[in-house]
Amino acid sequence: MPQTIRPVITLITDFGLAGPYVGTMKGVMISVNPLVRFVDVTHDITSHDVIEAALILQASYRFFPRGTTHLVVVDPTVGSERRPVLVTTDRYSFVGPDNGVLSPAFKDPTFQKCIELTAKRYFLDDIGSTFHGRDIFGPVAAWLSKGVEPESFGEEIKDYVQIPLPEASLSGDSIEGRIIYIDRFGNLISNITYRMIETLQARKGSQHIKITIAGHTIKRILRSYEAGSSKKPSAIINSWGNLEIFVKRSSASQLLSVKRGEPLVVESG
Amino acid sequence: MPQTIRPVITLITDFGLAGPYVGTMKGVMISVNPLVRFVDVTHDITSHDVIEAALILQASYRFFPRGTTHLVVVDPTVGSERRPVLVTTDRYSFVGPDNGVLSPAFKDPTFQKCIELTAKRYFLDDIGSTFHGRDIFGPVAAWLSKGVEPESFGEEIKDYVQIPLPEASLSGDSIEGRIIYIDRFGNLISNITYRMIETLQARKGSQHIKITIAGHTIKRILRSYEAGSSKKPSAIINSWGNLEIFVKRSSASQLLSVKRGEPLVVESG
Amino acid sequence: MPQTIRPVITLITDFGLAGPYVGTMKGVMISVNPLVRFVDVTHDITSHDVIEAALILQASYRFFPRGTTHLVVVDPTVGSERRPVLVTTDRYSFVGPDNGVLSPAFKDPTFQKCIELTAKRYFLDDIGSTFHGRDIFGPVAAWLSKGVEPESFGEEIKDYVQIPLPEASLSGDSIEGRIIYIDRFGNLISNITYRMIETLQARKGSQHIKITIAGHTIKRILRSYEAGSSKKPSAIINSWGNLEIFVKRSSASQLLSVKRGEPLVVESG
Repeated sequence: MPQTIRPVITLITDFGLAGPYVGTMKGVMISVNPLVRFVDVTHDITSHDVIEAALILQASYRFFPRGTTHLVVVDPTVGSERRPVLVTTDRYSFVGPDNGVLSPAFKDPTFQKCIELTAKRYFLDDIGSTFHGRDIFGPVAAWLSKGVEPESFGEEIKDYVQIPLPEASLSGDSIEGRIIYIDRFGNLISNITYRMIETLQARKGSQHIKITIAGHTIKRILRSYEAGSSKKPSAIINSWGNLEIFVKRSSASQLLSVKRGEPLVVESG
Repeated sequence: MPQTIRPVITLITDFGLAGPYVGTMKGVMISVNPLVRFVDVTHDITSHDVIEAALILQASYRFFPRGTTHLVVVDPTVGSERRPVLVTTDRYSFVGPDNGVLSPAFKDPTFQKCIELTAKRYFLDDIGSTFHGRDIFGPVAAWLSKGVEPESFGEEIKDYVQIPLPEASLSGDSIEGRIIYIDRFGNLISNITYRMIETLQARKGSQHIKITIAGHTIKRILRSYEAGSSKKPSAIINSWGNLEIFVKRSSASQLLSVKRGEPLVVESG
Repeated sequence: MPQTIRPVITLITDFGLAGPYVGTMKGVMISVNPLVRFVDVTHDITSHDVIEAALILQASYRFFPRGTTHLVVVDPTVGSERRPVLVTTDRYSFVGPDNGVLSPAFKDPTFQKCIELTAKRYFLDDIGSTFHGRDIFGPVAAWLSKGVEPESFGEEIKDYVQIPLPEASLSGDSIEGRIIYIDRFGNLISNITYRMIETLQARKGSQHIKITIAGHTIKRILRSYEAGSSKKPSAIINSWGNLEIFVKRSSASQLLSVKRGEPLVVESG
């Protein structure tokens, strides 16, 4: 295809912004494809936290235009036998290590295939064993953005690594979930989706619900942060479509002493 | 207008860089206008601090080329009745919540108008109540950067919200001001401008001044940080044209135990 | 030259990302050259740490395409007599204060010349004494990216400031070096290069080495982080080609209580 529009590569890493790592990786990619443009999703993934990276990818990848390449480098086993891969869906490409970090791509309804990256002509000449973001993943993403066909990078594999992202379960009268992400404001984002709550309500024929978390009970889902209280936790459906617990103008995480992984329950009642 | 040069959107938010929020908002904007380019001014505004965001906007917006759109999303009352707005001056557009964060635009001598954003065709299809940066402000900024006329987004309003940015006052023999920003080096930036000091000096017919802050007295305005002392506070006119208190190679904020809001006085003497 | 490809300017500063400083500097540069594109290497250099900035520059600059301008603004003596300079090598330009921060450019085998920036027509109109990134270095980098010849900015100087970056020394049976950088993972990067170790091994006719740091002894250089131990320090050749000490999935810096500057020794044995 002619490159009339500049191709987008997004970046999710645990490199942080203090060192030369992100910049170096971008330099390598610009050297391959001067037209590429970057969107930093985040470089502040907790070190080696593959699940957090997968969650951030899950929350962000669909908002980018068709043709975007999502580069995810959280790679604690770099240099070992873990394979570098390229995954395609109808709209996107994903490049990263085969350690589960790309799980959202495998679960995408339009998932196409997973290719092991083996064609060394698309890697940096001199490959080390500590920084495949620079040596393998970055260059591959850049060549891909230049129009190289996915099949050129290697053979399809079927035994790619998927990690189960923590999912809520709806059974009978209740939904059991967990806090999967805490944002900068201390808001507690759960893995309970609005659709699960609607299903529960339809099943019971009642709009009434009761949310329990860390010894607190919440009886309504509010329509804005403003409608909440600054003294006790409230609930809202957040921008991911998930149930979120917040304290107005304050940190629910601090006030409730809740960390990632905390269970919560939604019951009909 | 033909888009020969890529339009610039600057971003000031309190989202932080750890979550998917900034990246998601950019993905939405690139989807609307692939030609747009972003300059991140900062995403580290203190959570919900509308005044800090307005100060950062004030300090930065004039340095961008004509046609730049300044997107400011510090929005504690998102989802409530507060209105989303678009403000125009002769050179710039500003998009954000009508909570005072855009006050510098209202005070700009070339202020034109403030439009309430109501035309839903320029919003994201499915608008939530927690993230209007993604659902409303981002898309509007992107459509605007594509050449959509400001009038297309809604009706002009006159009762927009202005917050009084803390201003110094010159009366008789002295200027009373406050520390409005503390930078990464611990330098204390006041709201006392160089022009006020010149006015005071002209009025008194004397170049001599005395600055008092936190029990310390400073008698000269230096021409460089190098000319200062590493033991006690010195004064300089900073890059905003404001009076700044510093300690050479050290943190004035720590050494003087001064926080934002601290008063200071400049007297003729 | 015709600007068919957008020129790259990289940025290394100690401004941090919380204030308006980086954004302002970019606004000034875009105003000069709308085609320029930025790659932020880092803005988190420790305040005033000229040596850290030089190390980050050293580790990153070669990975960018020919024609890239590297802008380095760590400038504790801004506003004093220290000169602003432009340095050229065969492939790159470097702009920053003449305080040693550009030392890697002087040491580059293709170093061409160092020019003192004196042509005020390329500076911002109103030059202050606290922010030459915005007033001098940024505008010069932008004009340079537009094709202005280096000679247009001022006269060549020969007495530019070089700081000796801490280098390891190989003598007889051993290499003495130091930890020069600690990354986000707590990995300890030394100034001992792979080539020095190879030279030592060749000289002694033996592959066996012994690394000593902070009372610990390491006898092998591993090929991946995975091959290491989570209980004690291991060694690897890192992405800079340097000897790095790590603890698998943990922070060597914390576990060994090692900071930047810590000595280490590699002996044949």
